[in-house]
Amino acid sequence: MAPKQCILVTGGAGYIGSHCIVELLQADYDVVAVDNFANAQPGQDGYLMPESLKRVSKITGKPLQFVACDLCDEDKVEEIFKQHKFDCVIHFAALKAVAQSCAEPLQYYKNNMGSTVNLLNVMKKHNLRNIVFSSSATVYGVPQYLPVDENHPTGMTCTNPYGRTKYFIEEMLRDVHKSEPGWNICLLRYFNPIGAHESGYIGEDPQGEPNNLMPYIAQVAVGRRECLKVFGGDFPTIDGTGVRDYIHVVDLVKGHVVALQKIMRAELNGLKVYNLGTSRGFSVLEVIKAFEDAAGVKIPYEIVGRRQGDVPSLYADASLIDRELGWHAERSLLKMCEDSWRWQQANPEGYVSKRSVSSVPQ
Amino acid sequence: MAPKQCILVTGGAGYIGSHCIVELLQADYDVVAVDNFANAQPGQDGYLMPESLKRVSKITGKPLQFVACDLCDEDKVEEIFKQHKFDCVIHFAALKAVAQSCAEPLQYYKNNMGSTVNLLNVMKKHNLRNIVFSSSATVYGVPQYLPVDENHPTGMTCTNPYGRTKYFIEEMLRDVHKSEPGWNICLLRYFNPIGAHESGYIGEDPQGEPNNLMPYIAQVAVGRRECLKVFGGDFPTIDGTGVRDYIHVVDLVKGHVVALQKIMRAELNGLKVYNLGTSRGFSVLEVIKAFEDAAGVKIPYEIVGRRQGDVPSLYADASLIDRELGWHAERSLLKMCEDSWRWQQANPEGYVSKRSVSSVPQ
Repeated sequence: MAPKQCILVTGGAGYIGSHCIVELLQADYDVVAVDNFANAQPGQDGYLMPESLKRVSKITGKPLQFVACDLCDEDKVEEIFKQHKFDCVIHFAALKAVAQSCAEPLQYYKNNMGSTVNLLNVMKKHNLRNIVFSSSATVYGVPQYLPVDENHPTGMTCTNPYGRTKYFIEEMLRDVHKSEPGWNICLLRYFNPIGAHESGYIGEDPQGEPNNLMPYIAQVAVGRRECLKVFGGDFPTIDGTGVRDYIHVVDLVKGHVVALQKIMRAELNGLKVYNLGTSRGFSVLEVIKAFEDAAGVKIPYEIVGRRQGDVPSLYADASLIDRELGWHAERSLLKMCEDSWRWQQANPEGYVSKRSVSSVPQ
Repeated sequence: MAPKQCILVTGGAGYIGSHCIVELLQADYDVVAVDNFANAQPGQDGYLMPESLKRVSKITGKPLQFVACDLCDEDKVEEIFKQHKFDCVIHFAALKAVAQSCAEPLQYYKNNMGSTVNLLNVMKKHNLRNIVFSSSATVYGVPQYLPVDENHPTGMTCTNPYGRTKYFIEEMLRDVHKSEPGWNICLLRYFNPIGAHESGYIGEDPQGEPNNLMPYIAQVAVGRRECLKVFGGDFPTIDGTGVRDYIHVVDLVKGHVVALQKIMRAELNGLKVYNLGTSRGFSVLEVIKAFEDAAGVKIPYEIVGRRQGDVPSLYADASLIDRELGWHAERSLLKMCEDSWRWQQANPEGYVSKRSVSSVPQ
């Protein structure tokens, strides 16, 4: 039997990373996850397996390896590459809060750019040139047309440093690809991932006040917050609220596994860029309504002023990845809400309150 | 008497840095120069004052401090800031070879971006928010109109990673400026600096084959190289060769001192962007002719194919800095060639052969 292929997942303890690892283990890959706990809860002594990944093992019945590591420490990254032979990297690790990035831009450039440069340097040194990169629809900035396809201009109208780090990293990866043959690079531009694994064991667990709609709704539903603030009620949209392309996190991470498999079979060569969305937009009020239907609870909300930099509508043309890799999103908005709600009900305080549960496998 | 203001000059041992320090010392500033010798010759044991800066002292009759430091080492930068109280930073330090940047893009992102992030972090920590940044006309990419003014779009058509690092750092500095009040940031976009200090003591000393026209011409003139390669003879220009805006390095660095003085007098606030050029373009053949006139030697040249990414013509509208800060370039193309030639004749092998000259003050 051939040895399993081994995938390095950076930011593996976070929302999307943890969901991706479920799919990778189920697709029979070995996984080494690294995380610096910028957006995830560490295990009890700060070094044990993080709670999210204990639960990934519980869901899949499979083990995985975890290394606490800040990718800004190149020596540490080098050490990990000496201990393992990887076949591909899926690079999720990043700071991701838009408002924080405006207040502390240097942190974002240092972390997001610096970690990626280190990772790529070490990959190159170890002759590994396969990477799937977690990009974002934010690179499109203010859309010039809708739906947004992959040929839409990027970078010029990014409204915040977070988005700029994603755009800069995309450009850097293009330069790396041009600099030497042999790189296989897949840039996946996420629209708005929401939902949770349907087991209810893992989900989005933002620290502090949520920056995104769905965890905010779910926290209101479960009683952690009183009222949802809806930013802007006067956009030129169906009901005045912002329209976005929400995608179930499990669909999203399955897109990563498909890209990875194509790279591993040498069916994806060079640098490829794909949108990950549903090609359909929903307004904030439509999402609230869907959540109310899924959860059977009323979500009190209040319409307040627009946030700076928010565009009225943004949704994907996600047909390219379907044509080229045979992937498309399958889960409905209702399903996204049901799964978010299941996670939130089972974990009203996120991972923290469950940290001491001893039945969760290590 | 008030204590002198103290300026940190990064990349201080390099071509432009060393010329700038001459002007700073003559304008009665204290200077601390740092350099990692990526583009400069170290002193004999690798830590002594570099040759270029010994000569700066010789020219000015004034001392300066030098610290060997790679800005990628944030702890070391922190140490320097603990030992000195700076009033402003002039940030020249960068890798700058276009072709090398295409072959080794990660080095460029790591060095140019990483060093700047560290520098800004440490500045912020020490409450210093005054910086003059060495940018480049390369951020304009392929010009949409000529002459290029500061409102010309940037970033979209940068043809190489070197240029992208300059563009990315400009964007990062804009984000830093937006993130908190009190930053005074001057982005100076250089066109093509050539020439040398008229003393002939300091000048451009590229390591290996020169990437730029003037040092190549000068090395041919002095007999170090046989024949000048002119890249492209079929551009839509006056004589088919590329047209650029050459500016005397002494004019260029005087522009920095003016910007610095305005910042120090609180007459330059917030973020300002200025072209540093002469507003006049010369073709390669015109520069060769001017050099032949200045040096009284014939420069054999051969016209070869265009280099990828080279645009036919690029020259500045440099009137904004004249209107706002009262600076404009004063030295002619002939003067640029005369000074380059004086430097090259006196130092046919650059700084290296003079390293053991004991009469140069330490």
